This record gives sequence, structure tokens and C-alpha cells, in this order.
Amino acid sequence: MTGPSPSSTALLTDHYELTMVQAARQSGTAGRRSVFELFPRRLPQGRRYGVVAGVGRALDALEDFRFDAATLTSLEGVVDAGMLDWLGSYRFSGDVWGYAEGEAYFPHSPLLVVEGTFAEAVLLETVLLSIYNHDSAIASAASRMTLAAGERPCIEMGARRTHEEAAVAAARAAYVAGFEASSNLAARARYGVPSTGTAAHSFTLLHDAEADAFRAQVQTLGVGTTLLVDTYDVAEAVRLAVEVAGTGLGAVRLDSGDLGEVAREVRAQLDSLGATSTRVVVTSDLDEHAIAALAAAPVDAYGVGTQLVTGSGHPTCGFVYKLVAREGDGGEMVSVAKKSHDKTSVGGRKYALRRRDARGTARAEVVGIGAAPADDATPEGSSDRALLVPLVRDGEVVGRATLEEARARHRASIAELPRAVTMMSAGEPAIPTVFV
Amino acid sequence: MTGPSPSSTALLTDHYELTMVQAARQSGTAGRRSVFELFPRRLPQGRRYGVVAGVGRALDALEDFRFDAATLTSLEGVVDAGMLDWLGSYRFSGDVWGYAEGEAYFPHSPLLVVEGTFAEAVLLETVLLSIYNHDSAIASAASRMTLAAGERPCIEMGARRTHEEAAVAAARAAYVAGFEASSNLAARARYGVPSTGTAAHSFTLLHDAEADAFRAQVQTLGVGTTLLVDTYDVAEAVRLAVEVAGTGLGAVRLDSGDLGEVAREVRAQLDSLGATSTRVVVTSDLDEHAIAALAAAPVDAYGVGTQLVTGSGHPTCGFVYKLVAREGDGGEMVSVAKKSHDKTSVGGRKYALRRRDARGTARAEVVGIGAAPADDATPEGSSDRALLVPLVRDGEVVGRATLEEARARHRASIAELPRAVTMMSAGEPAIPTVFV
Repeated sequence: MTGPSPSSTALLTDHYELTMVQAARQSGTAGRRSVFELFPRRLPQGRRYGVVAGVGRALDALEDFRFDAATLTSLEGVVDAGMLDWLGSYRFSGDVWGYAEGEAYFPHSPLLVVEGTFAEAVLLETVLLSIYNHDSAIASAASRMTLAAGERPCIEMGARRTHEEAAVAAARAAYVAGFEASSNLAARARYGVPSTGTAAHSFTLLHDAEADAFRAQVQTLGVGTTLLVDTYDVAEAVRLAVEVAGTGLGAVRLDSGDLGEVAREVRAQLDSLGATSTRVVVTSDLDEHAIAALAAAPVDAYGVGTQLVTGSGHPTCGFVYKLVAREGDGGEMVSVAKKSHDKTSVGGRKYALRRRDARGTARAEVVGIGAAPADDATPEGSSDRALLVPLVRDGEVVGRATLEEARARHRASIAELPRAVTMMSAGEPAIPTVFV
Repeated sequence: MTGPSPSSTALLTDHYELTMVQAARQSGTAGRRSVFELFPRRLPQGRRYGVVAGVGRALDALEDFRFDAATLTSLEGVVDAGMLDWLGSYRFSGDVWGYAEGEAYFPHSPLLVVEGTFAEAVLLETVLLSIYNHDSAIASAASRMTLAAGERPCIEMGARRTHEEAAVAAARAAYVAGFEASSNLAARARYGVPSTGTAAHSFTLLHDAEADAFRAQVQTLGVGTTLLVDTYDVAEAVRLAVEVAGTGLGAVRLDSGDLGEVAREVRAQLDSLGATSTRVVVTSDLDEHAIAALAAAPVDAYGVGTQLVTGSGHPTCGFVYKLVAREGDGGEMVSVAKKSHDKTSVGGRKYALRRRDARGTARAEVVGIGAAPADDATPEGSSDRALLVPLVRDGEVVGRATLEEARARHRASIAELPRAVTMMSAGEPAIPTVFV
């Protein structure tokens, strides 16, 4: 490699972050203590909640946000020599708080609060937004799919329909939101996401006869494998599959046609052949609505591709990263907000609480300015759960969670929401955001 | 790094590619000579053409598709020891033909034809699809935007709304399709895409007064810079901007409100202040329709973010990678296609020609099976342009084009299409695909 280090994340940013810092150095404001917040102005149309994902990846990116010599060379012509010197020693030394990975969010939830000098905090804007906007869009769609699937497992298999690196992040985000496994091998290697897969239509077509393909697959992968049965004639393939593998065949996969109808026929055929424990896996252009529509069909697992990796109609969350407070002339902190009439923000550093009623059901997203009130300020019978956890302190990552912890957080957070979240129809956010 | 090499692309694939090869080795079919094709079954709803992008990135990925020791270790448990040995010496040794980067495409255009053994060609399925599906989705949207913008430049600034690596590929794909520049610094470093940017609202808010921010920016970036004028009051900011920078001010940027209306007011104000050559840049949630609607407004450049990086409603192309021919028992090539009734493919290796009438206007996408006919087979007065160019021969990349060549191919390819492509309304493909 003669170019910038592939593990540095410093160039995954916008040109204007650097020119702003250069200009702030000019005006003597680059070192002003500043608070930036990353938040959604709204949920995607009709969605009742969102799910935060990408927290762990963002912490990795923050640690790798360093400008090495090759990176600096590539920036000649973007900023001046003084600025390049400053970038060479850049290291985020501030503090970050944020929603835990897997947590549900609502309009104006302050998902990240980043505090540092203006210069060091503004540089992180683009890469933090990229990670949060992508990963949370996938997790938000995935969460609806796993809710719709109930006890039936969902498998992520969308790598081919999105950017090759976005695919790895999508597999990870889907896992956070309750998917059981992914087809993606890089997600397995990097993050420990369980991977799965058996064969495509090309494997059957490669052989002179379908039976040859099934036999080869069973011989090498065992009778517990999943045989793809819709390359030619489904009923004939199911008959062959049981003939080749026996009644202990793990599963058959359907990838075309009216999945509910075909699943019923295949289930009946499998049962009649004695393969009563052979599972039926379906995988053709599924989304949360198709999964919900198959609830009454004899389907044992869902493979989801395109609609998962594209956020089921909402491939980005629209999170923004806004300066909400900064040091004034006298060293005091000043709340700030732009006044653009269609994009107003609320100035001042936020806290966030999830208010639950006496039964533990979430009733409001409470967002306030300043310090969080003591717990006894809650209405009688209710309790508040603080949503911001420390992620970075003095530049050191302190809030790293495992993927299993993020999965547990997702399950707990969704379980706490009103039952309206299980409705796949479009509607209002499941709980209101209350500014105090 | 203790994990797999970050530059290897071998794990950017699906689990089942590897298990298929293992099973094909079992049945003795892994070495069968095979032809795979990558193609769209249709265009996104209402689109009149698509644009191929990602070709150069796919060639890079093919060269980096090697299984090093750490990669192989991560695959223990996925495939058996014999398969791991085979993967360790994997190297694509076949041939690839494809549409040149920047070329327009239509339903069933054979964008890639990959020929090799089944084992070596099937392994590339996922990573080729990921790259083509993503980059072509971006280029297809970008092309409509640059068409709508006419002579006015478009600037890509969507990094924050998509996965951080997808952002780099999106900047590259947008540049192929006629964008002038990008905000993305990694796209500049890796691919030489021109980068641009000045300041965000946070920069204005950082300062005690808007004038302080403008002064600092002009002092460090020069009077040719672009000042963002909608943080507080647009008219006051425009007045201040010219006061600070003089009538030589490069540009002002508007990021909110009714852009056409505000642009008219700002243009009149700039002219009245003598800043007649100061340009007006607009940047708020633009897509090709918004750009077209601003054609009559005094706007000099468009900054496009979210809608560019999400493919303007179509974040993926739905390309598939299908086995269309493979060696039979006797060494002859056999055309193959699955019979799934809602996903039929056409078997046999394809050629593709763009048929132009006597005036040089494209009239049909001609897709045939076997060898392309001699040129004198075209209807009188028309001519055919061959669309498949050699990309890889005996495993060596032979078809690498520069980004400037891809931009030129895009311009020429679009210029050749019927004028209907400039219509932003939904409609049929600009030319029919004719199977011969």
C-alpha cells in the first residue's frame, strides 16, 4: 500500500470539516469547548420506533481516527501546512455519552452527546453520522422483521444487494436486532455473527441431474443440510430430497412462487413422506409485511436479503450532528441553534429518560436540557430509566459492549414498549417525545 | 491486526459459495467449465435507463480475492480441511467480459460474462454483485441528476447518510455519472475525485457573531470561498457576506427554505450589491426532480446528499449472477436455466449490441445467444456497437479504464440515447431489449 492506511478512518469525512477547523484556528475559536449532539428530527414515515446500532463500530472508528503520513500527504491542497501539522497530532481527548447499542429511539432522542473542543469534536461529524445512519437504518428494519417473525428465526442474506462493506455492517446490525445468523463470512470473522448457507440454484444446474446435486450436498454437508427445491419442479424435488437424505433431512428451501401456498403443499408432502421434522425455509424478497403475512403458513425460518440491507424502504435514518452549546467569550457555556425556518434545532445539552408506568411499560421519551432531574420528580407510580451511558472519557473508550449485550438490550428495550410496536401498519411513534 | 487482512476481499462473500464448491468437489463437478452472467431482470420502476458503475472496483476486488492464513483460520467450521487447502491456493484464472464503466444498460443487458471453472467463478458471485448493485444504483441516480442539471455542476455530499465505505464508492460512482466533485476526502485520496467544501452551520454558531465567522473563513480560504448564509437571517447574512468578502465573493450557499424563491431573492440582492459574479449554491434534500424544478431559478450549482447515496428511491439494482452454461458429461457446453416460474432466466452465453439508426440514435439493446453476428446483419442504415469488452483474460486484468474514460463513456452513451431519457417522469425503458 502506498496510500493512506486502510485501517485509518480519518479520511472517511467531509472536506468542510477540515476547512472549518482551519478557519476556526484563524479566528481563535477552534479550542472553544463544544457540545455536539447526534439525533433524529423524526422517525421514517409511519415507523413506530427506531433501533440504535453502530455504537461499537463508531467507537472503533473513533479510536482509528488518526492522520498518518500518507493520509496527510493526500490532504495537501485541502488545508494549509499549519493545519496539516495540527492534524498529524490529532487525537480525540473529549467525552462521549450515548444510547446503548440495541436501544429503541424516538424523534429527538439524543443518541450521542460529544463534548470536546470544537476542532476535535467537529472532525468526527461525518464518520459518526455515516455509521449511525446506516447501521441504525438496518437495525430498525431488522427489528420489525424479527418482531413479525415471532419465535421463528430470521437469517440475513442481503450482502449481494448492498455495498460489500455495508453488507458486513448490515449483518452485524441485523444480529443486534434479533436475527439469528447471516450469510456473510466477513461478519462471522470480524464480529462473531453466526454464519450459515448451503447451496444456490447454480449448484443444481451444474449437475446433470437434480438427484446428483442433492446427493453431493448431503454427502459433504450431512443430512441436516438445507436442500433448495425450486430449481425445476418443487414436488419432484421434495420427493427426491427425502429419497436422497432420508426423513432426517434438515430443511428444504423455497425461493420463488407464492411462498405461503407452496409451503403448505411442501409441508404436507414432507409429512406424508415421514419427514415430519424437516423444516421449511423461505427466502424470496421478504420484508416485515411478507413475514407477517406468512405467520399462519407452515414456515420454520425466514431468509431476508434486499429489504433488510436497504432498510425496508428507509435506507438511512436522517440523523444529524448539531452544535448545541459552546464556550462563550467569558468561558461560560452558551446554548446555540440555527434559525433556518424548516430545520430548527433545540439548543443546549440534553439528557434523556424513558418514563415507564407502574407496570413497566414505556410511556414517554423524556428529553430535557441540562442535568437530569432526581428520580422522585417522576409522576406517581412511574419510573425513569436513564438512556445516556458513558462511551468515551478523556478520549478513552469506556463504554464498549459485546454484541450479545446489544442483543439483550434490544430485546429488553422492545419488550418495554407499548404493544402497538408489533403492528406493522404505519402509525405514530409508539411513545411521544416530551421536552421538559 | 490479528484478523484477516483488510485488503483481502475473500470474505466479502456468502457462506454458501464455499459450501457449494466443497460439495461440487465431492461430486467431481467443481472443475466443469462454466459461464456465469451478471444482469438486471428489469429496470427500477419507471426508470428509462441505468448506468453501469463499479467495474474498476470489481476488478480491484477480483485481484484481491485471495485467502491468506488468517482468512483461512476464520473459515474453520465453515468448510472442511480439504476445502481450506484448495482455498489457500485460489486464484481466478478465467476470463471476464463486461460493459465498460459508464455505459447505459437496459433490462437483460449482460453486464458481466464470467467464464472459468464452476469453483472459481461461483466464488466471485457475492462480491461482484455487491459492487455492481451498489455502484450502479448510485450512478443511475446520479446520471438523472446531472441530466436534470444540464450545464450546472452537481456536487456529491451524501457521505453522512450512508455507510462510511459505501460513501466512498458513491462519490466515485457519482463522478462517473457526471458529478463535478464530492465532499468525500477518501474518494479524493483513493480515486482522485475532486473534493470540495467550506463550512457548516456549526461554524457560524461557534462564533459570537456571524460576521466573525465569515471574516475567519474569508481570511483563511480566500474571497473565492462559499459562505453559508441561512444560519440566522438570509438577507442580513448576504449583506454581511459581501461586506466582509467584497463583490469578488465566490458563492453563497442556501441549505433550507423554498430554494427557488430564496435563490431569486438572494440573486437580486447580490446583484444590487454589485456581487454579480457571486454564485448561488443550493443543497437541501435535492433529487433529480427538485433539480429539474429549479431549472428556471438563478442557481449556479447543486449539492446533493441523501438522495444520491440512496439511489433516489432505488438503493440497489437487483442484478443477479446466474449460471447460464456449463460443461456437460462429454465436455460439450450445455445451456442451463432454472425453471422457477416467477424468476425465469435465459440460458446460454450472451452477446450484446447497441443498435443505432442512421442518425446515430440508439434504437435497441440487442441481446443474443452465442457469437455476435457480422455487422452486415444489421437493418439497412443502422449500425451495431458491441457492448462487451474484455476485462480479464486468463486471470489477468486487461480492461482497466481510468475514471476520466468512464466519464467520457457515460457522456457518449447518454448522448446516443433517444431524447426521452431527459424526461424525469416515470416511463418505459428508453430503448427495448430485443432477444435474437
